[in-house]
Amino acid sequence: MFIDVLIDRVRSLGTPLCVGLDPSIELMTASDRKLFGVDGGSASPERCAEALYSYCERILEAVSDLVPVVKPQCAYFELYGSYGIAALERVVRSARDRGLLVVLDAKRGDIGATSRAYAKAYLTPGGSLGVDAITVSPYLGPDSLEPFIRAAAEVGKGIFVCARTSNPGAAALQDLTIGNQTVAELVADWVQPWSEKTRGICGFSGIGLVVGATDEQSAQVLRKRLPDAIFLVPGFGAQGGTVDAIRACFNDAGIGAIVNVSRSIIYPHLFKSAEEQLPVDIRRRTRDVIRQLRGAMP
Amino acid sequence: MFIDVLIDRVRSLGTPLCVGLDPSIELMTASDRKLFGVDGGSASPERCAEALYSYCERILEAVSDLVPVVKPQCAYFELYGSYGIAALERVVRSARDRGLLVVLDAKRGDIGATSRAYAKAYLTPGGSLGVDAITVSPYLGPDSLEPFIRAAAEVGKGIFVCARTSNPGAAALQDLTIGNQTVAELVADWVQPWSEKTRGICGFSGIGLVVGATDEQSAQVLRKRLPDAIFLVPGFGAQGGTVDAIRACFNDAGIGAIVNVSRSIIYPHLFKSAEEQLPVDIRRRTRDVIRQLRGAMP
Repeated sequence: MFIDVLIDRVRSLGTPLCVGLDPSIELMTASDRKLFGVDGGSASPERCAEALYSYCERILEAVSDLVPVVKPQCAYFELYGSYGIAALERVVRSARDRGLLVVLDAKRGDIGATSRAYAKAYLTPGGSLGVDAITVSPYLGPDSLEPFIRAAAEVGKGIFVCARTSNPGAAALQDLTIGNQTVAELVADWVQPWSEKTRGICGFSGIGLVVGATDEQSAQVLRKRLPDAIFLVPGFGAQGGTVDAIRACFNDAGIGAIVNVSRSIIYPHLFKSAEEQLPVDIRRRTRDVIRQLRGAMP
Repeated sequence: MFIDVLIDRVRSLGTPLCVGLDPSIELMTASDRKLFGVDGGSASPERCAEALYSYCERILEAVSDLVPVVKPQCAYFELYGSYGIAALERVVRSARDRGLLVVLDAKRGDIGATSRAYAKAYLTPGGSLGVDAITVSPYLGPDSLEPFIRAAAEVGKGIFVCARTSNPGAAALQDLTIGNQTVAELVADWVQPWSEKTRGICGFSGIGLVVGATDEQSAQVLRKRLPDAIFLVPGFGAQGGTVDAIRACFNDAGIGAIVNVSRSIIYPHLFKSAEEQLPVDIRRRTRDVIRQLRGAMP
Protein backbone atom coordinates (compact mmCIF):
# COMPACT_ATOMS: atom_id res chain seq x y z
CA MET A 1 0.00 0.00 0.00
CA PHE A 2 1.36 3.41 -1.05
CA ILE A 3 0.72 5.05 2.31
CA ASP A 4 2.47 2.37 4.35
CA VAL A 5 5.52 2.34 2.10
CA LEU A 6 5.60 6.15 2.17
CA ILE A 7 5.37 6.52 5.95
CA ASP A 8 7.93 3.74 6.36
CA ARG A 9 10.43 5.48 4.07
CA VAL A 10 9.79 8.87 5.65
CA ARG A 11 10.66 7.28 9.00
CA SER A 12 13.74 5.39 7.84
CA LEU A 13 15.17 8.34 5.87
CA GLY A 14 14.19 10.77 8.60
CA THR A 15 12.62 13.29 6.25
CA PRO A 16 9.23 14.01 4.67
CA LEU A 17 10.88 15.87 1.78
CA CYS A 18 9.48 15.34 -1.73
CA VAL A 19 11.61 16.67 -4.56
CA GLY A 20 9.58 18.30 -7.33
CA LEU A 21 10.65 17.48 -10.87
CA ASP A 22 9.75 20.62 -12.84
CA PRO A 23 12.33 20.42 -15.61
CA SER A 24 12.48 23.52 -17.79
CA ILE A 25 15.01 24.19 -20.51
CA GLU A 26 14.72 27.93 -19.85
CA LEU A 27 15.82 27.48 -16.26
CA MET A 28 18.82 25.25 -16.99
CA THR A 29 22.31 26.76 -17.04
CA ALA A 30 23.63 27.89 -20.41
CA SER A 31 26.28 25.18 -20.25
CA ASP A 32 23.63 22.50 -19.67
CA ARG A 33 21.58 23.76 -22.59
CA LYS A 34 24.69 23.45 -24.71
CA LEU A 35 25.51 20.02 -23.33
CA PHE A 36 21.99 18.79 -24.12
CA GLY A 37 22.01 20.41 -27.58
CA VAL A 38 19.03 22.66 -26.86
CA ASP A 39 20.65 26.07 -26.88
CA GLY A 40 19.65 28.67 -29.44
CA GLY A 41 15.91 28.08 -29.15
CA SER A 42 15.39 26.01 -32.30
CA ALA A 43 15.80 22.52 -30.85
CA SER A 44 13.26 19.87 -31.88
CA PRO A 45 10.62 18.68 -29.38
CA GLU A 46 12.37 15.31 -29.43
CA ARG A 47 15.68 16.80 -28.37
CA CYS A 48 14.04 19.07 -25.78
CA ALA A 49 12.24 16.08 -24.26
CA GLU A 50 15.54 14.21 -24.12
CA ALA A 51 17.06 17.19 -22.28
CA LEU A 52 14.25 17.07 -19.68
CA TYR A 53 14.91 13.38 -19.18
CA SER A 54 18.65 13.90 -18.79
CA TYR A 55 18.13 16.73 -16.30
CA CYS A 56 15.71 14.64 -14.25
CA GLU A 57 18.12 11.70 -14.31
CA ARG A 58 20.75 13.90 -12.70
CA ILE A 59 18.30 14.99 -10.02
CA LEU A 60 17.24 11.41 -9.33
CA GLU A 61 20.86 10.33 -9.11
CA ALA A 62 21.56 13.11 -6.62
CA VAL A 63 18.56 12.60 -4.34
CA SER A 64 17.43 8.97 -4.52
CA ASP A 65 19.12 7.88 -1.29
CA LEU A 66 18.11 11.04 0.57
CA VAL A 67 14.34 11.41 0.05
CA PRO A 68 11.37 9.04 -0.05
CA VAL A 69 9.42 10.52 -2.93
CA VAL A 70 9.56 12.72 -6.05
CA LYS A 71 6.80 14.70 -7.78
CA PRO A 72 7.06 15.21 -11.54
CA GLN A 73 4.91 18.07 -12.81
CA CYS A 74 3.05 17.00 -15.99
CA ALA A 75 2.97 20.43 -17.59
CA TYR A 76 6.70 20.60 -18.24
CA PHE A 77 6.60 17.29 -20.08
CA GLU A 78 3.36 18.00 -21.98
CA LEU A 79 5.16 21.00 -23.45
CA TYR A 80 6.88 18.59 -25.84
CA GLY A 81 3.84 16.51 -26.72
CA SER A 82 4.26 12.78 -27.20
CA TYR A 83 8.06 13.11 -26.91
CA GLY A 84 7.60 14.84 -23.57
CA ILE A 85 5.26 12.15 -22.29
CA ALA A 86 7.69 9.46 -23.42
CA ALA A 87 10.38 11.29 -21.40
CA LEU A 88 8.02 11.44 -18.40
CA GLU A 89 7.42 7.70 -18.69
CA ARG A 90 11.18 7.10 -18.59
CA VAL A 91 11.61 9.45 -15.63
CA VAL A 92 8.85 7.65 -13.69
CA ARG A 93 10.37 4.27 -14.46
CA SER A 94 13.83 5.43 -13.46
CA ALA A 95 12.57 6.93 -10.19
CA ARG A 96 10.75 3.74 -9.26
CA ASP A 97 13.75 1.60 -10.23
CA ARG A 98 15.79 3.69 -7.81
CA GLY A 99 13.34 2.93 -5.03
CA LEU A 100 11.60 6.30 -5.02
CA LEU A 101 7.85 6.73 -4.76
CA VAL A 102 6.30 8.90 -7.48
CA VAL A 103 3.47 11.42 -7.06
CA LEU A 104 2.36 12.75 -10.43
CA ASP A 105 1.31 16.39 -10.24
CA ALA A 106 -1.48 16.35 -12.81
CA LYS A 107 -4.36 18.22 -11.12
CA ARG A 108 -6.85 16.36 -13.29
CA GLY A 109 -10.58 16.44 -12.63
CA ASP A 110 -13.54 16.04 -14.97
CA ILE A 111 -17.02 14.54 -15.26
CA GLY A 112 -17.31 10.94 -14.05
CA ALA A 113 -16.57 8.97 -17.22
CA THR A 114 -13.61 11.20 -18.04
CA SER A 115 -12.18 11.08 -14.51
CA ARG A 116 -12.43 7.30 -14.77
CA ALA A 117 -10.27 7.39 -17.90
CA TYR A 118 -7.70 9.64 -16.18
CA ALA A 119 -7.65 7.41 -13.11
CA LYS A 120 -7.10 4.37 -15.28
CA ALA A 121 -4.31 6.17 -17.16
CA TYR A 122 -2.35 7.09 -14.07
CA LEU A 123 -3.20 4.62 -11.32
CA THR A 124 -3.76 1.27 -13.02
CA PRO A 125 -0.82 -1.07 -12.38
CA GLY A 126 0.75 -1.79 -15.72
CA GLY A 127 -0.78 1.36 -17.21
CA SER A 128 1.45 3.56 -19.31
CA LEU A 129 2.59 5.52 -16.27
CA GLY A 130 1.43 3.67 -13.19
CA VAL A 131 2.59 6.22 -10.61
CA ASP A 132 2.04 5.80 -6.86
CA ALA A 133 -0.28 8.77 -6.43
CA ILE A 134 -1.63 11.77 -8.33
CA THR A 135 -2.98 15.21 -7.55
CA VAL A 136 -6.56 16.05 -8.56
CA SER A 137 -8.55 19.29 -8.73
CA PRO A 138 -12.06 19.45 -7.21
CA TYR A 139 -13.91 22.27 -9.03
CA LEU A 140 -16.32 19.87 -10.75
CA GLY A 141 -17.56 18.44 -7.46
CA PRO A 142 -17.42 15.19 -5.47
CA ASP A 143 -18.49 13.00 -8.40
CA SER A 144 -15.40 14.18 -10.30
CA LEU A 145 -13.15 12.98 -7.46
CA GLU A 146 -14.80 9.67 -6.73
CA PRO A 147 -13.43 7.74 -9.74
CA PHE A 148 -9.89 8.71 -8.73
CA ILE A 149 -10.44 7.84 -5.09
CA ARG A 150 -12.11 4.51 -5.88
CA ALA A 151 -9.34 3.54 -8.31
CA ALA A 152 -6.66 4.48 -5.79
CA ALA A 153 -8.40 2.67 -2.93
CA GLU A 154 -8.79 -0.46 -5.05
CA VAL A 155 -5.11 -0.80 -5.82
CA GLY A 156 -3.68 0.79 -2.68
CA LYS A 157 -2.42 3.98 -4.31
CA GLY A 158 -2.70 7.63 -3.30
CA ILE A 159 -4.73 10.72 -4.20
CA PHE A 160 -4.05 14.31 -3.20
CA VAL A 161 -7.12 16.50 -3.69
CA CYS A 162 -6.31 20.22 -3.96
CA ALA A 163 -7.93 21.84 -0.94
CA ARG A 164 -5.81 24.90 -0.07
CA THR A 165 -3.06 25.53 -2.62
CA SER A 166 0.06 27.66 -2.20
CA ASN A 167 -0.34 30.21 -5.00
CA PRO A 168 -1.11 33.87 -4.23
CA GLY A 169 -4.60 33.69 -5.77
CA ALA A 170 -5.65 30.54 -3.89
CA ALA A 171 -7.60 32.58 -1.33
CA ALA A 172 -9.91 34.07 -3.98
CA LEU A 173 -12.01 30.90 -4.00
CA GLN A 174 -10.56 28.44 -1.48
CA ASP A 175 -10.74 30.78 1.55
CA LEU A 176 -14.29 32.00 0.92
CA THR A 177 -16.74 31.11 3.64
CA ILE A 178 -19.99 29.34 2.90
CA GLY A 179 -22.12 28.79 5.98
CA ASN A 180 -19.57 28.13 8.69
CA GLN A 181 -16.78 26.70 6.59
CA THR A 182 -14.38 27.66 3.82
CA VAL A 183 -14.43 26.15 0.34
CA ALA A 184 -11.18 24.32 1.22
CA GLU A 185 -12.91 22.79 4.26
CA LEU A 186 -15.90 21.80 2.14
CA VAL A 187 -13.57 19.94 -0.22
CA ALA A 188 -11.89 18.31 2.77
CA ASP A 189 -15.33 17.12 3.91
CA TRP A 190 -15.84 15.39 0.56
CA VAL A 191 -12.58 13.51 1.08
CA GLN A 192 -13.03 12.73 4.80
CA PRO A 193 -15.25 9.60 4.57
CA TRP A 194 -12.81 8.09 2.09
CA SER A 195 -9.69 8.81 4.09
CA GLU A 196 -11.36 7.43 7.20
CA LYS A 197 -12.06 4.07 5.61
CA THR A 198 -8.80 3.61 3.70
CA ARG A 199 -6.25 3.76 6.49
CA GLY A 200 -3.18 1.60 6.12
CA ILE A 201 -1.29 -0.32 8.78
CA CYS A 202 0.53 2.92 9.62
CA GLY A 203 -2.76 4.48 10.69
CA PHE A 204 -2.77 7.04 7.88
CA SER A 205 -4.75 7.10 4.66
CA GLY A 206 -3.27 7.67 1.21
CA ILE A 207 -6.45 9.52 0.20
CA GLY A 208 -5.49 13.01 1.27
CA LEU A 209 -5.17 16.67 0.40
CA VAL A 210 -2.87 19.28 -1.11
CA VAL A 211 -2.41 21.88 1.62
CA GLY A 212 -0.01 24.76 0.94
CA ALA A 213 2.73 25.75 3.37
CA THR A 214 1.63 29.35 2.85
CA ASP A 215 -1.40 29.52 5.13
CA GLU A 216 -0.98 28.29 8.69
CA GLN A 217 -4.60 28.74 9.71
CA SER A 218 -6.09 26.60 6.96
CA ALA A 219 -3.41 23.96 7.54
CA GLN A 220 -4.46 23.76 11.21
CA VAL A 221 -8.15 23.49 10.43
CA LEU A 222 -7.69 20.94 7.65
CA ARG A 223 -5.37 18.78 9.79
CA LYS A 224 -8.02 18.78 12.51
CA ARG A 225 -10.76 17.75 10.09
CA LEU A 226 -8.76 14.95 8.47
CA PRO A 227 -6.50 13.77 11.29
CA ASP A 228 -5.40 10.63 9.47
CA ALA A 229 -5.14 11.76 5.84
CA ILE A 230 -1.81 12.31 4.14
CA PHE A 231 -1.12 15.92 3.10
CA LEU A 232 1.06 17.01 0.21
CA VAL A 233 2.49 20.38 1.17
CA PRO A 234 3.79 22.64 -1.60
CA GLY A 235 5.00 26.20 -1.26
CA PHE A 236 7.99 25.80 1.03
CA GLY A 237 10.97 27.67 -0.33
CA ALA A 238 10.45 29.68 -3.52
CA GLN A 239 6.76 30.34 -2.81
CA GLY A 240 7.31 31.73 0.68
CA GLY A 241 5.82 29.00 2.87
CA THR A 242 6.51 29.25 6.59
CA VAL A 243 7.82 26.80 9.16
CA ASP A 244 4.68 27.31 11.28
CA ALA A 245 2.38 26.41 8.39
CA ILE A 246 4.47 23.31 7.69
CA ARG A 247 4.29 22.28 11.34
CA ALA A 248 0.49 22.56 11.26
CA CYS A 249 0.34 20.00 8.43
CA PHE A 250 1.77 17.20 10.59
CA ASN A 251 0.18 15.43 13.53
CA ASP A 252 1.63 15.74 17.02
CA ALA A 253 3.98 12.84 16.35
CA GLY A 254 5.43 14.64 13.34
CA ILE A 255 3.84 12.30 10.82
CA GLY A 256 1.27 12.67 8.07
CA ALA A 257 2.62 15.06 5.47
CA ILE A 258 5.17 15.22 2.69
CA VAL A 259 6.69 18.60 1.88
CA ASN A 260 7.46 19.35 -1.73
CA VAL A 261 10.37 21.55 -2.77
CA SER A 262 11.15 22.01 -6.45
CA ARG A 263 13.01 25.07 -7.68
CA SER A 264 15.28 25.76 -4.75
CA ILE A 265 16.62 22.22 -5.00
CA ILE A 266 16.68 21.44 -8.69
CA TYR A 267 18.00 24.80 -9.93
CA PRO A 268 20.78 25.62 -7.46
CA HIS A 269 22.26 28.17 -9.88
CA LEU A 270 19.15 30.36 -9.58
CA PHE A 271 19.74 30.84 -5.87
CA LYS A 272 23.53 31.08 -5.55
CA SER A 273 26.41 30.64 -7.93
CA ALA A 274 26.91 26.94 -8.47
CA GLU A 275 29.90 25.77 -6.52
CA GLU A 276 30.55 22.46 -8.14
CA GLN A 277 28.82 20.28 -10.68
CA LEU A 278 25.02 20.27 -10.69
CA PRO A 279 24.47 16.86 -9.03
CA VAL A 280 26.77 17.85 -6.17
CA ASP A 281 24.97 21.17 -5.70
CA ILE A 282 21.55 19.50 -5.85
CA ARG A 283 22.65 17.00 -3.25
CA ARG A 284 23.95 19.73 -0.96
CA ARG A 285 20.75 21.77 -1.32
CA THR A 286 18.62 18.69 -0.67
CA ARG A 287 20.55 18.12 2.56
CA ASP A 288 20.08 21.81 3.49
CA VAL A 289 16.32 21.58 2.99
CA ILE A 290 16.17 18.31 4.97
CA ARG A 291 17.88 20.14 7.86
CA GLN A 292 15.49 23.11 7.59
CA LEU A 293 12.52 20.76 7.62
CA ARG A 294 13.84 18.96 10.66
CA GLY A 295 13.69 22.30 12.45
CA ALA A 296 10.09 22.72 11.31
CA MET A 297 8.85 19.38 12.63
CA PRO A 298 6.60 19.28 15.68
CA MET B 1 -8.65 35.17 -34.64
CA PHE B 2 -10.28 31.98 -33.32
CA ILE B 3 -13.54 33.65 -32.32
CA ASP B 4 -14.09 35.33 -35.69
CA VAL B 5 -13.40 32.15 -37.64
CA LEU B 6 -15.66 30.20 -35.27
CA ILE B 7 -18.62 32.57 -35.48
CA ASP B 8 -18.18 32.77 -39.23
CA ARG B 9 -18.27 28.99 -39.61
CA VAL B 10 -21.20 28.63 -37.23
CA ARG B 11 -23.07 31.08 -39.46
CA SER B 12 -22.15 29.55 -42.78
CA LEU B 13 -22.83 25.96 -41.67
CA GLY B 14 -25.96 27.05 -39.82
CA THR B 15 -25.11 25.15 -36.64
CA PRO B 16 -23.22 25.71 -33.37
CA LEU B 17 -22.66 21.96 -32.94
CA CYS B 18 -19.29 20.79 -31.67
CA VAL B 19 -18.62 17.07 -31.97
CA GLY B 20 -16.81 15.64 -28.95
CA LEU B 21 -14.05 13.17 -29.70
CA ASP B 22 -14.05 10.82 -26.69
CA PRO B 23 -12.71 7.66 -28.30
CA SER B 24 -12.91 4.60 -26.08
CA ILE B 25 -12.08 1.05 -27.08
CA GLU B 26 -14.62 -0.26 -24.58
CA LEU B 27 -17.41 1.64 -26.29
CA MET B 28 -16.56 0.59 -29.84
CA THR B 29 -18.53 -2.21 -31.48
CA ALA B 30 -17.10 -5.73 -31.21
CA SER B 31 -16.53 -5.75 -34.94
CA ASP B 32 -14.55 -2.50 -34.78
CA ARG B 33 -12.40 -3.82 -31.95
CA LYS B 34 -11.68 -6.83 -34.14
CA LEU B 35 -11.01 -4.64 -37.18
CA PHE B 36 -8.54 -2.51 -35.19
CA GLY B 37 -6.89 -5.57 -33.61
CA VAL B 38 -7.75 -4.52 -30.05
CA ASP B 39 -10.23 -7.21 -29.08
CA GLY B 40 -9.48 -9.60 -26.25
CA GLY B 41 -8.12 -6.96 -23.87
CA SER B 42 -4.41 -7.63 -24.29
CA ALA B 43 -3.60 -5.18 -27.08
CA SER B 44 -0.48 -3.02 -26.68
CA PRO B 45 -0.82 0.71 -25.88
CA GLU B 46 0.58 1.39 -29.34
CA ARG B 47 -2.16 -0.60 -31.04
CA CYS B 48 -4.86 0.86 -28.78
CA ALA B 49 -3.70 4.38 -29.59
CA GLU B 50 -3.81 3.54 -33.30
CA ALA B 51 -7.40 2.32 -32.83
CA LEU B 52 -8.35 5.66 -31.21
CA TYR B 53 -6.83 7.50 -34.16
CA SER B 54 -8.64 5.31 -36.70
CA TYR B 55 -11.96 5.77 -34.89
CA CYS B 56 -11.51 9.54 -34.76
CA GLU B 57 -10.58 9.62 -38.43
CA ARG B 58 -13.91 8.01 -39.25
CA ILE B 59 -15.73 10.58 -37.16
CA LEU B 60 -13.84 13.47 -38.77
CA GLU B 61 -14.58 12.09 -42.23
CA ALA B 62 -18.27 11.85 -41.36
CA VAL B 63 -18.71 15.31 -39.82
CA SER B 64 -16.12 17.67 -41.26
CA ASP B 65 -18.47 19.33 -43.76
CA LEU B 66 -21.36 19.48 -41.27
CA VAL B 67 -19.95 21.14 -38.14
CA PRO B 68 -17.54 24.00 -37.38
CA VAL B 69 -15.59 22.50 -34.52
CA VAL B 70 -14.56 19.31 -32.71
CA LYS B 71 -13.49 18.77 -29.10
CA PRO B 72 -11.04 15.96 -28.35
CA GLN B 73 -11.02 14.91 -24.69
CA CYS B 74 -7.42 14.49 -23.47
CA ALA B 75 -8.16 11.76 -20.94
CA TYR B 76 -9.00 9.13 -23.53
CA PHE B 77 -5.68 9.68 -25.27
CA GLU B 78 -3.60 9.96 -22.07
CA LEU B 79 -4.81 6.46 -21.27
CA TYR B 80 -2.20 5.17 -23.71
CA GLY B 81 0.67 7.41 -22.62
CA SER B 82 3.03 8.76 -25.25
CA TYR B 83 1.37 6.60 -27.93
CA GLY B 84 -1.98 8.12 -27.01
CA ILE B 85 -0.63 11.66 -27.19
CA ALA B 86 0.97 10.91 -30.56
CA ALA B 87 -2.48 9.74 -31.73
CA LEU B 88 -4.04 12.93 -30.35
CA GLU B 89 -1.49 15.00 -32.26
CA ARG B 90 -2.43 13.21 -35.47
CA VAL B 91 -6.16 13.67 -34.78
CA VAL B 92 -5.68 17.40 -34.17
CA ARG B 93 -3.66 17.78 -37.36
CA SER B 94 -6.21 15.84 -39.37
CA ALA B 95 -9.10 17.89 -38.00
CA ARG B 96 -7.37 21.16 -38.83
CA ASP B 97 -6.40 19.90 -42.28
CA ARG B 98 -10.08 19.20 -42.89
CA GLY B 99 -10.94 22.78 -41.98
CA LEU B 100 -12.30 22.07 -38.51
CA LEU B 101 -11.53 24.18 -35.47
CA VAL B 102 -10.22 22.21 -32.48
CA VAL B 103 -11.07 22.83 -28.81
CA LEU B 104 -8.94 20.62 -26.57
CA ASP B 105 -10.83 19.49 -23.48
CA ALA B 106 -7.95 19.46 -21.00
CA LYS B 107 -9.36 21.25 -17.90
CA ARG B 108 -5.85 22.24 -16.88
CA GLY B 109 -5.17 24.77 -14.14
CA ASP B 110 -2.22 25.16 -11.79
CA ILE B 111 0.00 27.74 -10.09
CA GLY B 112 1.26 30.51 -12.38
CA ALA B 113 4.53 29.06 -13.68
CA THR B 114 2.89 25.70 -14.35
CA SER B 115 -0.15 27.19 -16.05
CA ARG B 116 2.28 29.10 -18.25
CA ALA B 117 3.88 25.81 -19.31
CA TYR B 118 0.45 24.29 -20.07
CA ALA B 119 -0.58 27.38 -22.03
CA LYS B 120 2.62 27.21 -24.05
CA ALA B 121 2.09 23.49 -24.68
CA TYR B 122 -1.41 23.87 -26.07
CA LEU B 123 -1.77 27.38 -27.46
CA THR B 124 1.60 28.34 -28.91
CA PRO B 125 1.52 28.25 -32.71
CA GLY B 126 3.93 25.56 -33.81
CA GLY B 127 3.72 23.89 -30.38
CA SER B 128 3.30 20.15 -30.33
CA LEU B 129 -0.48 20.43 -30.42
CA GLY B 130 -1.33 24.03 -31.24
CA VAL B 131 -5.11 23.71 -30.90
CA ASP B 132 -7.51 26.63 -31.35
CA ALA B 133 -8.78 26.72 -27.78
CA ILE B 134 -8.63 24.76 -24.55
CA THR B 135 -10.76 24.27 -21.46
CA VAL B 136 -9.32 25.25 -18.06
CA SER B 137 -10.39 24.62 -14.47
CA PRO B 138 -10.48 27.53 -11.98
CA TYR B 139 -10.12 25.99 -8.49
CA LEU B 140 -6.66 27.50 -7.94
CA GLY B 141 -7.91 31.05 -8.47
CA PRO B 142 -7.57 33.90 -10.97
CA ASP B 143 -3.77 33.75 -11.09
CA SER B 144 -4.04 30.16 -12.34
CA LEU B 145 -6.22 31.30 -15.27
CA GLU B 146 -4.32 34.41 -16.27
CA PRO B 147 -1.40 32.67 -18.03
CA PHE B 148 -3.87 30.79 -20.24
CA ILE B 149 -5.93 33.90 -20.98
CA ARG B 150 -2.87 36.03 -21.73
CA ALA B 151 -1.40 33.38 -24.03
CA ALA B 152 -4.71 32.99 -25.86
CA ALA B 153 -5.24 36.75 -26.16
CA GLU B 154 -1.72 37.22 -27.54
CA VAL B 155 -2.15 34.76 -30.39
CA GLY B 156 -5.90 35.15 -30.95
CA LYS B 157 -6.93 31.76 -29.60
CA GLY B 158 -9.68 30.71 -27.21
CA ILE B 159 -10.12 29.71 -23.57
CA PHE B 160 -13.15 28.14 -21.94
CA VAL B 161 -13.05 28.46 -18.16
CA CYS B 162 -15.24 25.93 -16.34
CA ALA B 163 -17.92 27.97 -14.58
CA ARG B 164 -21.02 25.75 -14.34
CA THR B 165 -20.37 22.22 -15.60
CA SER B 166 -22.93 19.61 -16.63
CA ASN B 167 -22.17 16.73 -14.25
CA PRO B 168 -24.60 15.79 -11.44
CA GLY B 169 -22.17 16.91 -8.70
CA ALA B 170 -21.44 20.33 -10.24
CA ALA B 171 -23.89 22.05 -7.89
CA ALA B 172 -22.00 20.91 -4.76
CA LEU B 173 -19.49 23.73 -5.21
CA GLN B 174 -20.44 25.77 -8.27
CA ASP B 175 -23.99 26.63 -7.15
CA LEU B 176 -23.05 27.63 -3.60
CA THR B 177 -23.81 31.24 -2.78
CA ILE B 178 -21.17 33.54 -1.35
CA GLY B 179 -22.47 37.01 -0.60
CA ASN B 180 -24.95 37.61 -3.39
CA GLN B 181 -23.46 35.39 -6.05
CA THR B 182 -22.72 31.76 -6.79
CA VAL B 183 -19.23 30.32 -7.15
CA ALA B 184 -19.89 29.96 -10.89
CA GLU B 185 -20.73 33.68 -11.08
CA LEU B 186 -17.58 34.55 -9.12
CA VAL B 187 -15.50 32.63 -11.67
CA ALA B 188 -17.37 34.42 -14.47
CA ASP B 189 -16.41 37.72 -12.83
CA TRP B 190 -12.72 36.77 -13.01
CA VAL B 191 -13.10 36.18 -16.75
CA GLN B 192 -15.29 39.21 -17.52
CA PRO B 193 -12.60 41.96 -17.81
CA TRP B 194 -10.67 39.74 -20.20
CA SER B 195 -13.61 38.85 -22.40
CA GLU B 196 -14.60 42.50 -22.55
CA LYS B 197 -11.25 43.62 -23.91
CA THR B 198 -10.63 40.74 -26.33
CA ARG B 199 -13.64 40.98 -28.61
CA GLY B 200 -13.15 40.09 -32.23
CA ILE B 201 -14.64 41.71 -35.32
CA CYS B 202 -17.73 39.54 -34.75
CA GLY B 203 -18.35 41.32 -31.46
CA PHE B 204 -17.70 38.22 -29.35
CA SER B 205 -14.68 37.25 -27.30
CA GLY B 206 -12.90 33.89 -27.51
CA ILE B 207 -12.17 34.13 -23.76
CA GLY B 208 -15.30 32.47 -22.43
CA LEU B 209 -16.86 29.87 -20.18
CA VAL B 210 -17.96 26.27 -19.98
CA VAL B 211 -21.68 26.41 -19.11
CA GLY B 212 -23.60 23.14 -18.95
CA ALA B 213 -26.90 22.62 -20.76
CA THR B 214 -28.20 21.07 -17.55
CA ASP B 215 -29.02 24.19 -15.54
CA GLU B 216 -31.12 26.85 -17.22
CA GLN B 217 -30.96 29.36 -14.39
CA SER B 218 -27.19 29.55 -14.18
CA ALA B 219 -26.98 29.72 -17.98
CA GLN B 220 -29.27 32.77 -17.93
CA VAL B 221 -27.34 34.55 -15.19
CA LEU B 222 -23.92 33.80 -16.72
CA ARG B 223 -25.03 34.92 -20.18
CA LYS B 224 -26.23 38.19 -18.66
CA ARG B 225 -22.91 38.74 -16.85
CA LEU B 226 -20.74 38.00 -19.88
CA PRO B 227 -22.92 39.11 -22.78
CA ASP B 228 -20.10 38.91 -25.33
CA ALA B 229 -18.12 35.86 -24.22
CA ILE B 230 -18.26 32.58 -26.09
CA PHE B 231 -19.77 29.67 -24.14
CA LEU B 232 -18.93 26.00 -24.61
CA VAL B 233 -22.07 24.08 -23.68
CA PRO B 234 -21.72 20.41 -22.74
CA GLY B 235 -24.41 18.10 -21.42
CA PHE B 236 -26.90 18.08 -24.31
CA GLY B 237 -27.93 14.53 -25.11
CA ALA B 238 -26.52 11.76 -22.93
CA GLN B 239 -26.22 13.99 -19.83
CA GLY B 240 -29.83 15.19 -19.94
CA GLY B 241 -29.41 18.86 -20.92
CA THR B 242 -32.55 20.73 -21.88
CA VAL B 243 -33.51 22.86 -24.86
CA ASP B 244 -34.36 25.77 -22.52
CA ALA B 245 -30.91 25.69 -20.90
CA ILE B 246 -29.29 25.63 -24.34
CA ARG B 247 -31.37 28.59 -25.46
CA ALA B 248 -30.24 30.58 -22.42
CA CYS B 249 -26.59 30.18 -23.48
CA PHE B 250 -27.08 32.16 -26.69
CA ASN B 251 -27.74 35.86 -27.11
CA ASP B 252 -31.03 37.09 -28.56
CA ALA B 253 -29.64 36.81 -32.09
CA GLY B 254 -28.86 33.12 -31.52
CA ILE B 255 -25.10 33.62 -31.41
CA GLY B 256 -22.41 33.15 -28.79
CA ALA B 257 -22.28 29.48 -27.87
CA ILE B 258 -21.12 26.15 -29.22
CA VAL B 259 -22.95 23.05 -28.08
CA ASN B 260 -20.92 19.89 -27.59
CA VAL B 261 -22.35 16.45 -28.20
CA SER B 262 -20.12 13.39 -27.87
CA ARG B 263 -21.55 9.97 -27.11
CA SER B 264 -24.88 10.19 -28.82
CA ILE B 265 -23.11 11.09 -32.07
CA ILE B 266 -19.91 9.07 -32.01
CA TYR B 267 -21.34 5.81 -30.64
CA PRO B 268 -24.58 5.38 -32.61
CA HIS B 269 -24.72 1.68 -31.70
CA LEU B 270 -25.16 2.55 -28.00
CA PHE B 271 -28.41 4.33 -28.73
CA LYS B 272 -30.03 2.22 -31.45
CA SER B 273 -28.96 -0.73 -33.50
CA ALA B 274 -26.60 0.53 -36.17
CA GLU B 275 -28.39 0.64 -39.47
CA GLU B 276 -25.46 0.91 -41.81
CA GLN B 277 -21.74 1.40 -41.51
CA LEU B 278 -20.49 3.60 -38.69
CA PRO B 279 -19.59 6.71 -40.73
CA VAL B 280 -23.05 6.73 -42.30
CA ASP B 281 -24.72 6.38 -38.90
CA ILE B 282 -22.53 9.09 -37.37
CA ARG B 283 -23.41 11.40 -40.23
CA ARG B 284 -27.10 10.72 -39.82
CA ARG B 285 -26.98 11.29 -36.07
CA THR B 286 -25.00 14.50 -36.54
CA ARG B 287 -27.72 15.77 -38.88
CA ASP B 288 -30.38 14.73 -36.33
CA VAL B 289 -28.66 16.69 -33.58
CA ILE B 290 -28.21 19.71 -35.86
CA ARG B 291 -31.98 19.64 -36.45
CA GLN B 292 -32.71 19.33 -32.73
CA LEU B 293 -30.42 22.25 -31.99
CA ARG B 294 -32.10 24.36 -34.64
CA GLY B 295 -35.32 23.90 -32.68
CA ALA B 296 -33.53 25.02 -29.53
CA MET B 297 -32.17 28.27 -30.95
CA PRO B 298 -33.69 31.57 -29.82
